[in-house]
This record gives sequence, structure tokens and C-alpha cells, in this order.
Amino acid sequence: MIKEGDTVWLKDKKNSFFIKLKKGEIFGTHKGNIPHDEIIGKSYGDVVQTHKGHEYVILKPTLYDIIMYGIKRKTQIIYPKDSAYITLKLGITDGMNVLESGIGSGALTIVMANAVKPSGKIYCYEREEKYLKNALENIKLAGFEEYVKAYHQDLSQPLPEDFFDAGFIDVREPWLYIENIKNSLKNGAPVGFLLPTTNQVSQTLEELEKYGFIDFEVVEILLRHYKPVPDRLRPEDRMVAHTGYLVFARKK
Amino acid sequence: MIKEGDTVWLKDKKNSFFIKLKKGEIFGTHKGNIPHDEIIGKSYGDVVQTHKGHEYVILKPTLYDIIMYGIKRKTQIIYPKDSAYITLKLGITDGMNVLESGIGSGALTIVMANAVKPSGKIYCYEREEKYLKNALENIKLAGFEEYVKAYHQDLSQPLPEDFFDAGFIDVREPWLYIENIKNSLKNGAPVGFLLPTTNQVSQTLEELEKYGFIDFEVVEILLRHYKPVPDRLRPEDRMVAHTGYLVFARKK
Amino acid sequence: MIKEGDTVWLKDKKNSFFIKLKKGEIFGTHKGNIPHDEIIGKSYGDVVQTHKGHEYVILKPTLYDIIMYGIKRKTQIIYPKDSAYITLKLGITDGMNVLESGIGSGALTIVMANAVKPSGKIYCYEREEKYLKNALENIKLAGFEEYVKAYHQDLSQPLPEDFFDAGFIDVREPWLYIENIKNSLKNGAPVGFLLPTTNQVSQTLEELEKYGFIDFEVVEILLRHYKPVPDRLRPEDRMVAHTGYLVFARKK
Amino acid sequence: MIKEGDTVWLKDKKNSFFIKLKKGEIFGTHKGNIPHDEIIGKSYGDVVQTHKGHEYVILKPTLYDIIMYGIKRKTQIIYPKDSAYITLKLGITDGMNVLESGIGSGALTIVMANAVKPSGKIYCYEREEKYLKNALENIKLAGFEEYVKAYHQDLSQPLPEDFFDAGFIDVREPWLYIENIKNSLKNGAPVGFLLPTTNQVSQTLEELEKYGFIDFEVVEILLRHYKPVPDRLRPEDRMVAHTGYLVFARKK
Repeated sequence: MIKEGDTVWLKDKKNSFFIKLKKGEIFGTHKGNIPHDEIIGKSYGDVVQTHKGHEYVILKPTLYDIIMYGIKRKTQIIYPKDSAYITLKLGITDGMNVLESGIGSGALTIVMANAVKPSGKIYCYEREEKYLKNALENIKLAGFEEYVKAYHQDLSQPLPEDFFDAGFIDVREPWLYIENIKNSLKNGAPVGFLLPTTNQVSQTLEELEKYGFIDFEVVEILLRHYKPVPDRLRPEDRMVAHTGYLVFARKK
Repeated sequence: MIKEGDTVWLKDKKNSFFIKLKKGEIFGTHKGNIPHDEIIGKSYGDVVQTHKGHEYVILKPTLYDIIMYGIKRKTQIIYPKDSAYITLKLGITDGMNVLESGIGSGALTIVMANAVKPSGKIYCYEREEKYLKNALENIKLAGFEEYVKAYHQDLSQPLPEDFFDAGFIDVREPWLYIENIKNSLKNGAPVGFLLPTTNQVSQTLEELEKYGFIDFEVVEILLRHYKPVPDRLRPEDRMVAHTGYLVFARKK
Repeated sequence: MIKEGDTVWLKDKKNSFFIKLKKGEIFGTHKGNIPHDEIIGKSYGDVVQTHKGHEYVILKPTLYDIIMYGIKRKTQIIYPKDSAYITLKLGITDGMNVLESGIGSGALTIVMANAVKPSGKIYCYEREEKYLKNALENIKLAGFEEYVKAYHQDLSQPLPEDFFDAGFIDVREPWLYIENIKNSLKNGAPVGFLLPTTNQVSQTLEELEKYGFIDFEVVEILLRHYKPVPDRLRPEDRMVAHTGYLVFARKK
Repeated sequence: MIKEGDTVWLKDKKNSFFIKLKKGEIFGTHKGNIPHDEIIGKSYGDVVQTHKGHEYVILKPTLYDIIMYGIKRKTQIIYPKDSAYITLKLGITDGMNVLESGIGSGALTIVMANAVKPSGKIYCYEREEKYLKNALENIKLAGFEEYVKAYHQDLSQPLPEDFFDAGFIDVREPWLYIENIKNSLKNGAPVGFLLPTTNQVSQTLEELEKYGFIDFEVVEILLRHYKPVPDRLRPEDRMVAHTGYLVFARKK
């Protein structure tokens, strides 16, 4: 039974929408309007009609569906192959306070928030207000707003000291902020970076070494899709060749 | 301040141990004994001595450290590059009831348990008692035992019907159990499989099609390590070329 | 000094043409005509004008340029990453008689012909007349026609016995012809196959085993391009994920 | 019928030897001696005995066998996946004069010599005498000595001007010699580099740009082996993750 507060996925052949249900509200599509109240009380798999008679199936989106198809992208998002690994590599778990900067479109924030619940928090620092605003709407759609604190500032601003259990940094010139990042991390806390170019990797490693970080790991993750045809099984013709290098280290 | 119930990581140059602390217990190494009480109350980064005077540093292990270095492996484990992606692709989140079979050494179980907390559970079905026993010890070490229910049975036995929000299957011949798996899943629930050979992928896809599953994805994930040397940055000489193909589908 | 018989590469900003020069002939473009005689005697890097005054630079194409940009493609070609490896893995060298079927657009034929010269030959068997005709024109453009013998027949037809020093097979169902192929090869001769799907690989390996072939190798080759920017070095965003699996074996 | 001048491959269960046959000579193994004359006149597949009665099978090695198993390695060799692509990408063909430095163990030299025959030549510049000597023995074993000219000097020494149709450079600091290399190449000639680290790639690209080279390509080639088992087809567990980046450009 679908209830207020649930996020539902409406789909027809061409379009799909993610809606967080609230009594009394109305969702407008170019095929007509749907009062949220007409969805509340239905079951997943049921159909709902707009006031013009156009039909949508109501599906229950997974967290993956929301991240991949639901969130509004105002930046390149960190893809599941990377965001899942980052979250596990940093050991994100219940009760941790995690530093994140920038927030991007919130895709990684959601994955990390899923891991710190119920008693941890993701602290996001983002200098572009439009990204911050969009990311927070995405995080709300996914239902994780209570696990996220967001600040409109960049890493040149003071951070809480000796506070974070882990951190992830996705900004263009992270080497400028290593001292500030280090001070904000607890002893032994892991930190990660996403960097598109080899030059950025070298420059970041150099600065991390200078500030005494240890336990370095530099990896890249490649995901290859196969055509799911049992008697003609083969990889797809093309694939994503690069999203970014991942650099990990630990504060000593 | 380290307290009872914490899992600590003792390290010297050669060896490392993960210990879940309990007042009154004694941890024995070949370099001498350490009462847990001597660790409780210390801080991370401190040193503790055995009764023979050998020193270990006390570190705070991350969840990643426990999975990679702490758990006892009686089977090939599902590596972070795969377990992290599986957990996100299946959309594992708070409150979900998740089917897992077999349990292996519990590495994936821990990652999924981290995502279903605080109100969900992983239900593990394993036919080898020795694997089950070892996995449960590993899960306890990681601190997730309250989120895991384990059964000493295989997938040919009856499962709860229309119950699971997601499932992950890592057994040699999953195609034998597709009907049973399907009945146990809720409508729309995603299910995944890890399969080492292309023949297994073909046979599993065929059976999934026969039972009306939809939304297929077949992928493989490659992780390449780089030598973290700023002025001589390059990939490692060798890498893992294959762990397994991942097959995902959704019950319709 | 450019002379008759040379293959030249005419280029403007948008288009490029490969022309094998012959006295008295005229090359027509939609920007006007160019008598071959106006190119003969010039130097590479010089400019030639059409009768309408449009200019083309005259370049000396490498064999690679001819294969990648010069040949007319009526089929998917075997790309350099694969054709180069195939030719080396089969040990193609001076004096060898090599079996090839089908001929495709002749891209692999050219690479192998380059290796058997001056005293060997590539014997091509192709059942589609239109492919055969096109491939032969491509081979002539590259200047290797004297090293290629082509037959309009498929592998179900009799082949010379105990004759070939090596073979390469790129047809949809090679397992149907293994006995015929085996009889045509000399003792110890290597043979290769290009196969897009894993099912084809399994079926071909099975048949090769049945006929007593030895020294199996199954590989796939991935080529990743980088953006050639010194201070922002990184892989391209996308890459070819699959052309085909390569299977090699040796007649015993 | 095996004749003088042929290179044969003697194999028992443990060892294998490549021998270039010469009447009157004797080949010594730790299992006894074999006069070359006892091999000359036999057929491939036949057996030959040492004077102590130990048996070896006589096989006909392919060029690939000689490169992979026959040549003595005093350096890391350039592997077939790379050497084959390099040779094709540079468009190496009959009649070309090709610059190579260093010579390494001659593996690439042999592959390129195979492509320039019968009227071209590979010009090798190597500063380490011991590498040069070993490479020349390897090249002789493969039967390509007439297509190779070797010099005991490095790239800081004068090279023939405006002479080479293509070049391949595998030295630690190629950026030191770009001007010299450029002067030695003909207009439009392609040149390639093998470079293990990203820093070397950046530095080489920078210098090539400075000297006006065009048509850059930076690639890496990955080769993945599969276990050749028809009903359990899957990649090998481990693979080579990196040999080197390949950089190509053309003199303008």
C-alpha cells in the first residue's frame, strides 16, 4: 500500500517521473495533472490516470533508480561503479561524520548517507549555490535529508577541527586545501579524491605526501556491459573508458 | 577512548589482529598475551605490550579494513569492487529484507547489512555448515550480527513467499532455483548473480527469461591499481583480470 | 618525386582521397577534375589544383592510413589492434602460404600480405561476390595484389591439402568447416579465428579439440585512447569495448 | 625436409632450444650432444637423440615462437600486443628505412624487419654494448640480419638527415633528443614512443608539440587471456595490467 512520504516512479512508454507523495499536492505533466491523493492508497504496479485520461504505471523505485534516473543532474555525477567503491573503501558506516566537497548533484552524498544512517552525517561544502540547491532537492527526493548538512562555502574556509571520520573531495585543485582537510580529519581517518587527469593525481599525491598522509591507493574502475542475450553473449560495442582516477590516503 | 565492544586492530611490522573487546578476556599471540582490559581505556594510536614485552600499535579499523584484512576466508570472497556495486545496483537501503545465498565468508553480507540498518535484515541461506559458522563469526567481528539471519539450507528448500525486497545469489547452478527465488521476491524486486563463466551467464539468463524476469544487466568490473608515485605515475604491472560476471534482473 | 604507380593521399579540410597514379587518367571530385599527370612529378607536401581551382595537399599515405582511411568498407573491418596481433601470433613471414576466409573488406589481407612478401601468398576464400570484388580493389589500392589469390567460394568447398602454413577464419559458423580447414593446413601450422560471441568461442573450441588441435590461446585486445594534452593527460571518455574474441590453435 | 640454415625448435618435456643449423656443428645440452648433421635431412615432427640417448622432438618454430621463446632477454622485451600494433601504426612496409633506438633485446626489431623486407632496413642505435650484441644474436636466430643495421651509439650522436621513413624510440628520456630525431625523419614520417609512466608521456608530448609534430595518438593496449575450456569459458584470474603507453606523431 503506497503512503504519504513514499517516493514513487510514474512511467509511460516515453517518460518517467519520481514524486515524493504529499497529501493535497498535484503533480503536473504535459499529459495532464495527477493529485498525489490518487496515488496514495494504491499498490505498486497499479495504474494512475491524469485528468486528461493519460495512464502511468506506478513503480517502486530502488535507491539505484533514484540516483540514475531520478536526480536532476547539473554536474557530471559520480557513477555507481565509483560511488559504491568510494563509500566502501572509506569504510563509511553508522555514526560516522563524513566530509564531502563539492556536492555535485548529490549522487555520492546519497550513497554515503545510506551508509552512515541512522546516527551519522554527511557534511557537504559547495561553493556554487546552484549546485548546492539542486543537490539538496535530489537528496530530499531520495529521502536522506536528515543525514546531510550542507554549507555554501569552499575548502578555503575553516572546517571543524579533528572532527571527520572520513572525507571525499571532488574539486579541481584539491592540492590547495590539503592542510585544511588534514586538520579537519580525525587521526587515522581515510580520505579520497576523484581526479580526471594524471597530472592532478601526481600533484595531489605530492601534496598528500608532504603533509604526511599514509596508506596510498590509486585506482581506476572500468565497468563493461554485456548484451544480455543467452545464445549470443558478448560485450556491448562501446563503453565508458574513463570517469576519473580515485586516490585514497589516510591521515597519520 | 577505546571501550568494551569496540573492534580494534593490533599491528606490528609483520602481523595484525582484529579483536572485539570484552572485559576479562585475554588475547594470545605467539609473542605473548594481552588482557583486553589493557586495551580498554587507551586511545587509538597508543601502544600495548604483551606480557613478554612485545609491542603492538592499536588502530581503529574501518569497515573496509575488517572486510579485507580482518575476516577469516574459507571461500573466495566477493571483493569490494563487486560487493559495493552489487549493493548499490540492488538499491539496498534501510528496512529492506534481502535474500542472500550462499553466504561465502560473509564479505558481501557485511556490506549489504551496512546498508539495510537499522530496520532491515539480510537472510542468508548456506548449505555448507563450516562456511555458515565462519561467516557468522566474521559478521560478528564487523558488528552486524543483529542485521543478519542465517539458515543452514540451500535454495532447493522452501523460502518465505513474496517476502524479499532484493536478492543476491552466488551458487554454482543458480538456474536450478529460479522458480523458488522468484516466488520469494516481491513484485519488482531486483536480484543479482555472480557467475565466473560465460556458460553460467547464458544458462542463468535463459532461465530468468523463461520465468519472466525483466530489466537485465550483465556487467563485469575491472579495477586497476596505480603505483602512487607522483613523478613516476603508472599502473601496477599486474592486475586481477576476472572475479566474475554480474547478472541483474527484476521480478515482474 | 611522385611517380606513376604510387598511391597518393589528396586532402582538403573536409575530404580526402587515395589515388593510385596512372598516366593519362583523370580523377574527378565534386570540386573539379585533376589529371594524374599533374600529380606525377610533384613532391609530397605540394598542392594540386582541380580545373575549377580547388586545392588539395598531396600526402604520402602510410599503409596504416590506407587501411584505416583509404579502403572502402562493405563489411566491418578487422581493426589494427586485432589484425596486427593476428599476423604476429600466426607468425606470418616471407614465403608462407596463408589461408584466409572470408576476405571481408581486405583489411587483414593487406596486413598479412605485407608480412608474406616477397615470396609468399594469401589465399582468400569468400562466398559473397560483392565483398570479394571490393576487397580486391582495396588490396590493389594498397599495392599488394601480387601477394593475394582470391576465390569465390566458401569453406564447404574442397581446399588444397596439406598446403597452408597458417590460416585465419572470420566466418559466422567456423565449427562447420574444421575438418576441411585441418586437412588444408600443414602439420604444426597455426590457425586463428575471430568470433564476436562467447557461444561461438565455446563451439569453435569444442570442435577444434575434437579434431585434435593443440596449443590453444583465447584472447581479447582492448585499445584505449588518451587525449594527447600534456598538462591534462587522461583517457578519452569512451572506447570500443569489443570487436571480437581471438582464438588460436595449432594443427597436430 | 629440414636443411642447413633453417632454425629448428628442439623440445622435450622440460626444455626447449632454438638452433640455426650449420653443417659440421654440434649442439650441446646437459643431456648430451647432437650434431647438426643429424637434424639436417629429417622432417618436422621427427625425433633426434643425443649421444647419451636423450630424445628431443624437432618442431618448426613460427616467428612468434622465436620472439616469445627463442630470443635471449637481457632487457624487458616489447610484447607482441605492442610490437605488432607499433609496426602497423607506423605503416612499416617494403623498402622503408626505419629508425629504432634502443634495440632492447631485438624483439621489436624482428617484427619491423619482417615488414620492411625485401628492400628496406631497420637502423638501430643502442648505447649499451651488451644489449646490442645480444639483440644481434637474436635477430640472426630469427633470420633477419640482412635487414638490420646496428650502431653502438645513442640519440645524442648525429643521425642521417631527412632519411628515415618512420621511427620508434624506447629510451628513458626521449624528450632530450626530439630535435635530432626530427631532423633524421623525412617529411610526414610517423614516429612512435613507448613510455612506462604518465609523466614521461606528458613530457614527450610537450616536446613534440614544441617541434611542430602533428597527428598525435596516445594509446595503451590491454590483452586479456581466457581459459580455453569450451564449457567453462572465462578470463584467466590475472593479467598484465601495464607494459607502457604508446605515443605516436608525425613530422610536419
